[in-house]
Amino acid sequence: MTSTKYDVLAIGNAIFDVLVQTDEGFLAAHGMTKGGMMLIDEARAASIYRDMGPATTMSGGSAANTVVGVANLGARAAYVGKVRNDEVGGLYTHDIRAAKVAFETNAATGGPATGCSYILVTPDGERTMNTYLGAAQELTPGDIDPEQIAAASILYLEGYLWDPKSAKDAFVKAADIAHGAGRQVALTLSDSFCVDRYRDEFLDLMRKGTVDLIFANEAELHSLYQTSDFDTALKQLNKDTKLGVVTRSEKGCVVASAEGILAVPAFPIERMVDTTGAGDLFAAGFLFGLVRNAGYEKAGRLGALAAAEVIQHIGARPQVSLKELAQQNGLPV
Amino acid sequence: MTSTKYDVLAIGNAIFDVLVQTDEGFLAAHGMTKGGMMLIDEARAASIYRDMGPATTMSGGSAANTVVGVANLGARAAYVGKVRNDEVGGLYTHDIRAAKVAFETNAATGGPATGCSYILVTPDGERTMNTYLGAAQELTPGDIDPEQIAAASILYLEGYLWDPKSAKDAFVKAADIAHGAGRQVALTLSDSFCVDRYRDEFLDLMRKGTVDLIFANEAELHSLYQTSDFDTALKQLNKDTKLGVVTRSEKGCVVASAEGILAVPAFPIERMVDTTGAGDLFAAGFLFGLVRNAGYEKAGRLGALAAAEVIQHIGARPQVSLKELAQQNGLPV
Repeated sequence: MTSTKYDVLAIGNAIFDVLVQTDEGFLAAHGMTKGGMMLIDEARAASIYRDMGPATTMSGGSAANTVVGVANLGARAAYVGKVRNDEVGGLYTHDIRAAKVAFETNAATGGPATGCSYILVTPDGERTMNTYLGAAQELTPGDIDPEQIAAASILYLEGYLWDPKSAKDAFVKAADIAHGAGRQVALTLSDSFCVDRYRDEFLDLMRKGTVDLIFANEAELHSLYQTSDFDTALKQLNKDTKLGVVTRSEKGCVVASAEGILAVPAFPIERMVDTTGAGDLFAAGFLFGLVRNAGYEKAGRLGALAAAEVIQHIGARPQVSLKELAQQNGLPV
Repeated sequence: MTSTKYDVLAIGNAIFDVLVQTDEGFLAAHGMTKGGMMLIDEARAASIYRDMGPATTMSGGSAANTVVGVANLGARAAYVGKVRNDEVGGLYTHDIRAAKVAFETNAATGGPATGCSYILVTPDGERTMNTYLGAAQELTPGDIDPEQIAAASILYLEGYLWDPKSAKDAFVKAADIAHGAGRQVALTLSDSFCVDRYRDEFLDLMRKGTVDLIFANEAELHSLYQTSDFDTALKQLNKDTKLGVVTRSEKGCVVASAEGILAVPAFPIERMVDTTGAGDLFAAGFLFGLVRNAGYEKAGRLGALAAAEVIQHIGARPQVSLKELAQQNGLPV
């Protein structure tokens, strides 16, 4: 195996977040399924924005949030995702590069605007996402640079990539290149409704070994195996993939590997403000632990720590140095 | 006196905030004076943005933040300020209206872009602002609707209005209308450097009775009277204005009126994240207390409560219902 340039390279839908705190009534009035990610068109985006309260905006995108977390912890990270060359695309590009993540994907010069997600945060901290994919739909296999993919220890992919038509081909191309170079490939299942849309394909990716490591939350795991019994689903996951990591909110996470099942507790928090990015930042911490060969227990703790930071404020990107936070908590950096 | 349509109407520079957490080194490298508000041109704005980290953006503007707080507490609020009819101006308009603040000022259809402030937040929570006034410079007396001004119990003005050339005329016109209708006029001194620029004019406004109520923090008070002795400055303030309210960070505030000097403690906080908007939200709570005839003690407590909320997260606008927060703390709403 040749030496690496990046510890983690992620591919995902590049999405700008428009966050607002609201109440349950707003979700009901607009027919939104709480906690989910719904795909919307421009007209629906305009109508949600018109009705919603004052917003906070910042760059987001699931896999992008994860690599920003990885870089924040001190590892070498890169991102592949599609924005347009519009104002919001400019902000997006600035933000991810300013987070010390390599980002070289060419912006689309025509077609739909940079993708946006209208994220409604209810008083319990739960987030409900309404995503207009926009330019993210334009990601194609042509955006995958074989040399760059081969230079990353871990390739991290989001299940959401199954939504735009050509991104899926980019996904598979990248996974093949990574494996060809002897690298690891990780997939987050993203969202239980997303799993519902692409269940068979995701299972196929796992069983054929296109991906080596799976991140899922409980809802996604239950959806994947269409069972309400956690242990049944977890056993199946353990069979279907080399390494499966399931997040369980305040119950922490479980790691299913050839070594068996390991449970790791969550970090205590002062107050839950906004769950946006919880899973993304968990993955960031866990991947960072793998990069540092810290073992599953410490990787799980790092994931829990990063997730705990991000749910205590609005938005899906860390507001403090996760590296310092990890050091203060006696975790490897 | 005729009945009112608004409890508080504010006039200010309409500014969109671009917030970033950074370190002391960034301020030093860019020659910024920590804690201050510096006016910058487009070229400087571009160079700061190029070098700064990932940003969170949201609507701001000192007096606008205050009326958003007033509305959040449950009173009737309006705002007058100038944006351009560009993308950011659209966000600004959406946000202030979504906060239930009446906002009818015509957007500029030409000239500079909507104003932006690049706000650097250091680890101690202090914010350093670099403001490109942009379209805010286009506010003129023609934007002042006499009927609307006369319909507000309290007219609230920011000292920052002294920076754009014609806004000052709009300020004086509005104050005259308000007094003609038997209303009260309040002024926040905004920033110690701003006081330094316009000291004599601000003192004139106070001594001639153009304004009835002054909000200042300690630095602004010391700058106004060019003394390092707090008590000397406070006594002078008490002579120069009917009602003077001085905020002192963790030491709370003092209210100087014909009834004498009253000290009100600060609210305890869990952690200081970002002081942006602390003074603005204090003013919101205090003005709300006046509107509800709660007395200076309770007005000061309401101010302290609103300020405590806003400094515990990024950004200058409240993230929770201040009304509920006040109720939980036994304060009048």
